[in-house]
Amino acid sequence: MKLGLVGLGKMGLNLAYNLLDHGHEVAAFDVNTGAVMQASQAGAQGAASLKELVEALEAPRIVWLMVPAGELTEKVTRELAPLLSSGDIILDGGNSHYKDSIRRAGELRERGIFFLDVGTSGGTEGARHGICAMVGGDKEAFGRVEPLFRDLSVENGWLYAGESGSGHFLKMIHNGIEYGMMQSIAEGFELLDKSPFGFDFEKVARVWNHGSVIRSWLMELTERAFSKDSDLSGLKGVAHSSGEGRWTVETALDYGAAAPVITLSLMMRYRSQEEDTFSGKVVAALRNEFGGHAVVRSEE
Amino acid sequence: MKLGLVGLGKMGLNLAYNLLDHGHEVAAFDVNTGAVMQASQAGAQGAASLKELVEALEAPRIVWLMVPAGELTEKVTRELAPLLSSGDIILDGGNSHYKDSIRRAGELRERGIFFLDVGTSGGTEGARHGICAMVGGDKEAFGRVEPLFRDLSVENGWLYAGESGSGHFLKMIHNGIEYGMMQSIAEGFELLDKSPFGFDFEKVARVWNHGSVIRSWLMELTERAFSKDSDLSGLKGVAHSSGEGRWTVETALDYGAAAPVITLSLMMRYRSQEEDTFSGKVVAALRNEFGGHAVVRSEE
Repeated sequence: MKLGLVGLGKMGLNLAYNLLDHGHEVAAFDVNTGAVMQASQAGAQGAASLKELVEALEAPRIVWLMVPAGELTEKVTRELAPLLSSGDIILDGGNSHYKDSIRRAGELRERGIFFLDVGTSGGTEGARHGICAMVGGDKEAFGRVEPLFRDLSVENGWLYAGESGSGHFLKMIHNGIEYGMMQSIAEGFELLDKSPFGFDFEKVARVWNHGSVIRSWLMELTERAFSKDSDLSGLKGVAHSSGEGRWTVETALDYGAAAPVITLSLMMRYRSQEEDTFSGKVVAALRNEFGGHAVVRSEE
Repeated sequence: MKLGLVGLGKMGLNLAYNLLDHGHEVAAFDVNTGAVMQASQAGAQGAASLKELVEALEAPRIVWLMVPAGELTEKVTRELAPLLSSGDIILDGGNSHYKDSIRRAGELRERGIFFLDVGTSGGTEGARHGICAMVGGDKEAFGRVEPLFRDLSVENGWLYAGESGSGHFLKMIHNGIEYGMMQSIAEGFELLDKSPFGFDFEKVARVWNHGSVIRSWLMELTERAFSKDSDLSGLKGVAHSSGEGRWTVETALDYGAAAPVITLSLMMRYRSQEEDTFSGKVVAALRNEFGGHAVVRSEE
């Protein structure tokens, strides 16, 4: 098939290579002209603007967005809409909030344009060699682009998830689960590190990847990380987050549902971002007030 | 090799089949004579007592215990010790507390008997077709029985973990991680269930097992569970626990280490075991006292 690809960052560029490998024709645009050049060298048709990208396609067009979620996706969608025609399909492969995707699908539907929200997992390696895709939106429109997913995904690695928003909703929950799994693995290794046994963390992760109940891709990544830095001494224990974990917690609040472990995993990331905390100072002050317990004074 | 196997429950019997498949000679004992019969029919040499089991072996003997952890493992070890000779090896494949294993290894060392603590993962399927084994104890003794692990484990699925206790310590932490991963997966599906999208949980778990970041054996088990009962309506949401999660939390307390997600996963299992809680009543009573908020009265 022929499609337009907007956004040639780490994910987008790998997706372009993956599409080209499978014989698809790709018109590619990014504000970063260097990335457009890279895509062109791999066989894509470079475009200097969204307009040029759309002109390179024939109706009914397919345009895949691989743009950072939020303002940028909003901006690109708004600029793209008037350039497209009824029957065209936009796929948003970014980590957009599912409520934004529901709204965008509604707005574009008024123009006769289909908007599919594509939750995409597997990281940059997945984008290059096989993604896991969860797709929400009009089912017929999905049917038209399903051959793309057959090629881009690992075997059985795509799902038509249902109405608009359901694809990005699944991706959001996927990432929430990921937060909890990662924190759980991390706490386990914290205890191994504090134990007197002097474990070889790489070997432990490796044996756990062979036949154990907790074998998983995340444990494989754990093994790989320890193979590069046996005690991670080259890293600071600071973990940031990019939105989906927080949205999962907000969703739990929306539904009045108990999701304490995913919530706490997010909070532990926030904690990791601070060297000291005000709450810690308050607890220290209170222990000192009622019991005369020693406090650690901050240095001037 | 020839070895004695004590304990022919779900794990032990599958382990016997696995050993026999690999051409090992197995003398088998269990207090349940029916299980001994089953093992005999599969080619094991049935023993009517620990004494008979030991007599069926030639020194230096190897005896593998697959007995419930705690009192029973203690009882069997104490009865077995006087029947064995210097140079014999006991392997404890159960979920014993690592501190018990350190003590037992010390006590048996005085008699010249080696005690290896074997953390065993993979469930009953693993016992039958390939375990993941983490082994602590004397390294030379381990070397003598390593061929058994080569046969019983999946490829690369065994590790000499270090001194006595390290094998069961690793298994304990493994199970702690498992608690957190399971709770995290469970919370994700809780939110899917409360969402308006009407997801097919089996299909969601399946797509997540193909190329996603959270692909894992636990997600495969999730997929399998939903394939049998699409909304788990046949189950009550009550989860018990068998010790290792609690020991992981106790270990975090021993070390003064923060392991909040594993801890909370355990507490959520406790919560699941109660239909109502006293803490819930206290919060309801306090809201009523200070704000006149409505309470739900228990039925007479």
